[in-house]
Amino acid sequence: MAAAAARGRVLCLFDVDGTLTPARQKIEPEVDAFLRELRERVHIGVVGGSDYAKIAEQLGDGDEVINKFDYVFAENGTVQYKNGQLVSKQAIQDHLGEELLQDLINFCLNYMALLKLPKKRGTFIEFRNGMLNISPIGRSCTPEERIEFSELDKKERIREKFVAALQREFAGKGLRFSRGGMISFDVFPEGWDKRYCLNVLDDERFDTIHFFGNETTPGGNDYEIYDDPRTVGHSVQNPQDTVQRCREIFFPERANEC
Amino acid sequence: MAAAAARGRVLCLFDVDGTLTPARQKIEPEVDAFLRELRERVHIGVVGGSDYAKIAEQLGDGDEVINKFDYVFAENGTVQYKNGQLVSKQAIQDHLGEELLQDLINFCLNYMALLKLPKKRGTFIEFRNGMLNISPIGRSCTPEERIEFSELDKKERIREKFVAALQREFAGKGLRFSRGGMISFDVFPEGWDKRYCLNVLDDERFDTIHFFGNETTPGGNDYEIYDDPRTVGHSVQNPQDTVQRCREIFFPERANEC
Ligand SMILES: [Mg+2]
Ligand SMILES: [Mg+2]
Ligand SMILES: [Mg+2]
Ligand SMILES: [Mg+2]
Repeated sequence: MAAAAARGRVLCLFDVDGTLTPARQKIEPEVDAFLRELRERVHIGVVGGSDYAKIAEQLGDGDEVINKFDYVFAENGTVQYKNGQLVSKQAIQDHLGEELLQDLINFCLNYMALLKLPKKRGTFIEFRNGMLNISPIGRSCTPEERIEFSELDKKERIREKFVAALQREFAGKGLRFSRGGMISFDVFPEGWDKRYCLNVLDDERFDTIHFFGNETTPGGNDYEIYDDPRTVGHSVQNPQDTVQRCREIFFPERANEC
Repeated sequence: MAAAAARGRVLCLFDVDGTLTPARQKIEPEVDAFLRELRERVHIGVVGGSDYAKIAEQLGDGDEVINKFDYVFAENGTVQYKNGQLVSKQAIQDHLGEELLQDLINFCLNYMALLKLPKKRGTFIEFRNGMLNISPIGRSCTPEERIEFSELDKKERIREKFVAALQREFAGKGLRFSRGGMISFDVFPEGWDKRYCLNVLDDERFDTIHFFGNETTPGGNDYEIYDDPRTVGHSVQNPQDTVQRCREIFFPERANEC
């Protein structure tokens, strides 16, 4: 790793799924190797919606990820690592309060109790630091059951109706909802989307923060941070596109190589 | 490991929590060393209520457990390893059918939606191979929150009332309920207690199966297998007691040593 000074005050911040890795899968060796090169020129960080364990599994072995990146932001930045150290964690219960949190949980439990599906499994509500993840079929379904639910969800808009019911019930309570993946949606406090990590980065005084994400249109989970004035946003198609875009920007002298 | 023939047709089958390890913790080195000695004389196996990952974590590093024991039965024997190989798994959904399973899940979701507690977290229903684990506070609570719930449960009998409601609602449906630990209870098909592993062992033609457990009274999760005519049951207090009892039975020539 180059000395910090040599890398200037530029940070490249990457989404994980669909930007550095195929969705829910491990990073490919070429992308991994490119990031090592890139880190000679700029600071690099990741910001994912998943928990730290999942991000670590996708981006390295064991805890490698915290040494590969200057910043690792899990759960949209509510869990923060800098230079290999856990900086801090935010807790949704401290922000919402136990009362509202429990009303929210009980509403979801009741809604799901009335929902009849071809199959139900377990882990309908997963509690994370910065969000609740809600899954009508239950997160412990098999890959086949996941696909089956997803097909049904496309036809019957199960998640969309569930979110609409929550929006009505909890209007004005400062909650946000985002569908992602195939079987679940997230509930989190207003502002606790990927922009959350920018609050931490405010103190780091970068001249420029580039953000690369694959879901940058309204409703996508990269939209808010991409659109934020504190970032220079880049919309990418897949990990190869991310590498290509970074080469053009940070290795202009070698742009013809690939 | 001695040749199978030299060890005769005797099996020592151990419960995990409170019998080979302190509850939910790792096995102590002396107990681990004793089991290696014991395995020179008899076949050894474990049968736990937890899932394989938890049992493996308590009894060794990584997958060591499947090489340390001739038989590893997770989730009461619905997940079965013999000589280091996964033999088979049973699935609760195949046994109950999706209809009854979902009625059960929906009843639990609805019951918990109406329950007001000081705190709720996530993972209220965990789906395992051979059982559902139901936790009114949610399994993802912290150790402090676990204790807080447990204290409240002692006073208000939250789990006891929940189980009673399930017993009324699902009478005659072939379900059993067992409280264990501090924050949850298990629901499983009749007969899918620890005796389940004896069905697998029937084919192995042991002359004697010794069972060692620490919860051998009615209502305890070792009661049925301890009481079963196919085992010679031993009721133990803790891992040291287990070692002591085994020494007396299998190393009588050295009984005075300790
Ligand atoms: Mg993405
Ligand atoms: Mg921007
Ligand atoms: Mg026990
Ligand atoms: Mg017996």
